[in-house]
This record gives sequence, C-alpha cells and structure tokens, in this order.
Amino acid sequence: MKFVCDGLSLSEAVIKVSKACAVRTTAPVMECIKLSAFGEEVTLLATDGELSIRKSVRAEIFEEGEICVPGKLFSDFIGKLSDEEVSIATSEKGVEIKYRDAGTFMQSLPAEEFPKIDFSAQENSFTMKQSDLKKIIAETTFCCAQDDSRPVLKGCLMEFGEKLEVTALDGYRLAIASAPILAKSGEKSIICPARTLSEIARMLEKEDEEITLYTQGGMLLVQSEGTTVVSRLYQGEFIKKENVVPSAFSTKVTIRRAELIDSAERAAILIRGDKNNLVTLDIDPESVKISSVSDFGNVAEVVKAATEGMEMTISMNAKYLLDALRALGEEEVTISFNGAVSPFILQNAQQKESLYLILPVRNAA
Amino acid sequence: MKFVCDGLSLSEAVIKVSKACAVRTTAPVMECIKLSAFGEEVTLLATDGELSIRKSVRAEIFEEGEICVPGKLFSDFIGKLSDEEVSIATSEKGVEIKYRDAGTFMQSLPAEEFPKIDFSAQENSFTMKQSDLKKIIAETTFCCAQDDSRPVLKGCLMEFGEKLEVTALDGYRLAIASAPILAKSGEKSIICPARTLSEIARMLEKEDEEITLYTQGGMLLVQSEGTTVVSRLYQGEFIKKENVVPSAFSTKVTIRRAELIDSAERAAILIRGDKNNLVTLDIDPESVKISSVSDFGNVAEVVKAATEGMEMTISMNAKYLLDALRALGEEEVTISFNGAVSPFILQNAQQKESLYLILPVRNAA
Repeated sequence: MKFVCDGLSLSEAVIKVSKACAVRTTAPVMECIKLSAFGEEVTLLATDGELSIRKSVRAEIFEEGEICVPGKLFSDFIGKLSDEEVSIATSEKGVEIKYRDAGTFMQSLPAEEFPKIDFSAQENSFTMKQSDLKKIIAETTFCCAQDDSRPVLKGCLMEFGEKLEVTALDGYRLAIASAPILAKSGEKSIICPARTLSEIARMLEKEDEEITLYTQGGMLLVQSEGTTVVSRLYQGEFIKKENVVPSAFSTKVTIRRAELIDSAERAAILIRGDKNNLVTLDIDPESVKISSVSDFGNVAEVVKAATEGMEMTISMNAKYLLDALRALGEEEVTISFNGAVSPFILQNAQQKESLYLILPVRNAA
Repeated sequence: MKFVCDGLSLSEAVIKVSKACAVRTTAPVMECIKLSAFGEEVTLLATDGELSIRKSVRAEIFEEGEICVPGKLFSDFIGKLSDEEVSIATSEKGVEIKYRDAGTFMQSLPAEEFPKIDFSAQENSFTMKQSDLKKIIAETTFCCAQDDSRPVLKGCLMEFGEKLEVTALDGYRLAIASAPILAKSGEKSIICPARTLSEIARMLEKEDEEITLYTQGGMLLVQSEGTTVVSRLYQGEFIKKENVVPSAFSTKVTIRRAELIDSAERAAILIRGDKNNLVTLDIDPESVKISSVSDFGNVAEVVKAATEGMEMTISMNAKYLLDALRALGEEEVTISFNGAVSPFILQNAQQKESLYLILPVRNAA
C-alpha cells in the first residue's frame, strides 16, 4: 500500500473514525484504524465491536492495499501534520509516514486481523430532519443507565409510528421525547446504544437537511457527509410506558423553570457528597418550598407557583430533578404528582412532546 | 455579627480569597474563610498556613463581629447569589444567609480558632511594572520542583540587584529570568513559594501599573485592588548559578523555534508513556535531526539550523525541551552545548534575558 494525500483532510477523517476505536482491550487490533487504499480513495475504519465508523478521503494511490495502524497514536500524530502533504506506505518496518524530508515508522498489524464490518443495512429506513433527531437524542440519552447491570438500559427505545418516539430509562427515572418522521419503511422499533446516538448527533452538522437511518438484522447504519456509522442494536424488553407513566394526578404545579433551577442548585450545594443527594419540595397552593439538610447546614427557598389539587411534600435526588429541568426548554414547566411515594412527571407547560418521570425517595426525616 | 451587602461584590471577593483555603486538612478551621464585619466593611480572610489572602467589601454592618464559614461551601453558595442582596448573620444554629424571602443556615466555627496572620511586613520593598513581574513568574515557576523531597526547590530564588533575577530549578532543569526594578529598599534575596507567585500573577490585572512587594521577617506581602496576599518565604540554600551555568560552549545552534517545537511534539507522541520520554538531537553543520524511538515506531525529522562548533548527538526529556522552547518567545532560539553529557542551555537568539538549562540523559541506545 502506498498513497499521498493532504494532511488536513486525513487528520479530519482520522479524528472522526478514531471515536470508535476500542480503549484498553486485550485485542490490539480493536484499538487500530484500518487504512484501505483503492481506486482514488483511502478509507479509514475503526470499530470497538459495537460501534463502527468509516470515512473516505481522496488520495493519490501508488499501490493499492490495506493495513492497520494504532488508532490513538496515528490520530495524534496525523493531527500534527495538518499543514503537510503526507505520504503513507507499508514497509518491512511497519507503516512509513513521510512529510517534507522527514520520516516516521509506526508499528502496524495486517489488515486481515481487522474484524469484518457489515455495511449492508438497508432493509428498513426512516428519514427525519437532522435538527429534530439531534434534539431528541439530547433530550433522552442522559437518562440511560451508565452501568452494565441491565445492558439493554444503556440504549434508547426508538419507536417509529406517526412520529419517532424515543424512551430512555435507568431504573430511577425515565425520559420520553418525540419528533416528526418525514418518511419510513419497515421496522416498528429498535433499541439503539446511547453511545451510538451521541456519535450520530455529533455527525449532524447541517441542521436543516434530512438524515436517513437504515436498519437490518440488528444493525443500524447512518451516512452523512462521507462518514458512515454502523452500530449493533440491543435486543430485549423495555418497560411499557403505559405501565409506569400515570395519566391522572392528584397535584399539578406550574412554576417558572429558571427560578426552580436556581433554587434547586443552591439546595444541591449543601448536600453535595451526601449519598442520597436529597432535596424536598413542599407544595402549597401558591408556592413551592425547596429545601435540603446536611451536616453542613440547611437551605429553604420559596418559589411562586400555581398549584391545582392537594398540598403535599415529596423528596427526590437533586441531580435527577435538575437534569430534567435543564432538558426542558420553556419558561414554565408543569410538575404532576400522585402523592409522596409515587413517580412524578415533568413537562413543558405548553409543548408536551417530551416527558421526564422521576421516582421519589422516601425521606426518613 | 450581622451585615447586608451586594451578592456580586461578595461573590467576587469570596472567589479570590478561597484560593488560599486549605484542602483535605485535619484542622477544619484551615478550610474556612473568616468573615470580619467592622465599621463599613466586611473583610474575608483565608489561609493554608503558608499563603493567606484577604479582601474587603463594602457592607452595611448592623452588628459588628467575626465568624468562620466552610470555605468551599460558602464560596460555591455565594457564587449562586450574585444577583441578590445578601444578609449574613450569626445565630445559634450557625451562620444565617438570607436573600429575598429564602434562608440558609451554614455550619460555622468561632473566629478565635482561626490562625492569626501577620499583615505588617513593610521593612523592605521593591517596585516594578506589573507586566514585568507577571512575565518573569510565567517564565520560571514551571521549572520549580513539584514534590517535597527538597522543599526549598518548590520556591523561586528572587535576587534584587540592578534588576530582579528569578531562578527556579528542580534538579533536572533550571530557569532564570530577569526584569527591571523601579525602586527598592533593603533585602537582597528571598525564596518565594511558586504557588504564591502564581497567585500574585493572577492578581496583576493592570499590566501598565506598578506593583510593590514588601518583605519582613520571612514574610512577603503584596497588595493590589483591595486584595492582600501574605506568604511565608522559604529559608535555605539555592544552587549558585555560576557553578552550573557554563560560560563557554563547544557547539552553538541557532534554529527556528516553531519548527523545532513542531518536530519535537511529533517525536514526543511516539514516546508518550515511556519512562524516560527521550528525544535525541543530532547536530550537523546545517541542520538538527530530531528523533525518538519506542515500541510503537520511530520518528526522525530534520530542521535547518546554523551551527557553530562541533557536530554532536545528545538526548533529553522531551517535556523539558518543549517547556523551555514554549517559554522562549522569539522566532529563533540559540541552544548551546558542551558535548553529550553536560548541561545545555536555551535562550532567545536576540534578547538573552531568560535562560533555560537542561541536564541531558545518557542514551543507552
């Protein structure tokens, strides 16, 4: 293999694909980027077994061929050559990188060791506005589980009906967001790893344009601006939202979002480091009192609110409350409760397209 | 104690003094900020035993008095009240912080437990331009020792002659920088903790104005814009620079700084994580070859240079080379050697006011 190409395009491509390189694995080839030089293009490919990213750049090919280079090292090194014309060739000593009159050899692995990635998914497809997809990814993925105790919860349920509805949950809270679909064929629902969705969101640079996602045989494929992302999908059962999201409430509070965030942030400072991270809301007809108590002191603030229904007191993890309030976008939010021990939901006061559900904590105090 | 003041001024002052709060100590009072309300001012004071910072803000005092509050907590909390008028009062339950109709209690400690800080240093003084002091601090402190094996090396030697000359060294490298003194009285030299110098540099916001440093009995005092910094000085012996900085050299290389930085950065990528972090320079009459070797590969780059004297090969820690090159500011630098095993020095090609000396490493290869 031997090719010459522009250092800037190569370095941009390397940065994109290296996001999929595995870290700290026992199989060194999974930490590699595969370079394939054929025709008039060099194709870069990285995978961690779940997520794969591929990108091609124009190059002058002197000898066709393929080779694997250490991902992180190659990415950092090429990143320092964005002003140069770079020549890359296989040699007995590894991969030779030449620029100006300098030369670098980098350890390499044979291309045959690199896993085969299936880029054929095309059976089912759905198309939507890039900005819509980006928005619902940002509104939901933060609620996915972080640990491996129930792997399926590290993904988001994506249901294609009239709209695309995305659900994320981690056992303590749940997020649902939806956005219009412009065209679709096939498949009704998939569970996509949150990490894949975050990488897809990062690719979506042209907000006004459309993006099509393809699925087939447990795989998802997305293509944008010459970058292709392929991901394994999760198989499993998601909780049915009808079973957890209540439809009737005994208390509804409408409150200014920014004020509640400010108060909850101050209350959260005093309990930082506490295991339960508890804030308490006391809901009166015309106000909500936000309070917290720790060994360091206590905070109590009152924010005006419009309450319908019963007065009540409820405690929750301050982080879950703040995450949901920050993800909602309107000036006012509505919080709906069914007493102190049932899950409660947060929504924008006007546009109800996204919903956050949080489990309260029984406050021993 | 009871006072009312503007949240923004209070929060700015708290952020400044909290830099001196001790972290993870066994004496909780050292992690505190002392608030003293007398006359028309509240004075905030924090200390870690070595460095102390004091700042006053205007306030309406309803009851004079003093109290200690937990530094980090108080600082974070007041930081969220910059839009409010804040009332602070001692009470039986601790310190009460009131804003709008909300109230917070924070644990406190009696003011008597707070260490006495001596702000009287005034015997000796020297005055210079803020920009000059800031510049020589930035040029030297990064070469101070980081560990405690020889505590005095965590400080910079400051010698007041015609100029102020600052020396920093860590056993592997040495930095010297100097700048004009506008006025001085007394003391010939002090050793000031690098951390104090960094805090002083941060205070110097008006580059064109002058700043006066006072010393007395092993203490340093600096005052600017209502903030006072007091620091313990170190006592001990610094290596004499005449004994380590050579005055004659067998090889002198003048080279473009940016090109050498780029090449050394690329060479450093391949050896990242190696214990010795070694790069090698091969010095020819018209060029310098920069190379590195690791298990991952090897780099060899050639940068044009003007060499006087003997050809030679020398190896060094890439970080020390890069730190010195980045701290120098001119387009061209001169590097002067006395063979492969003697210390070498780096200076700007024109203005020789700062100097970096680095010990080479014997390369086993």
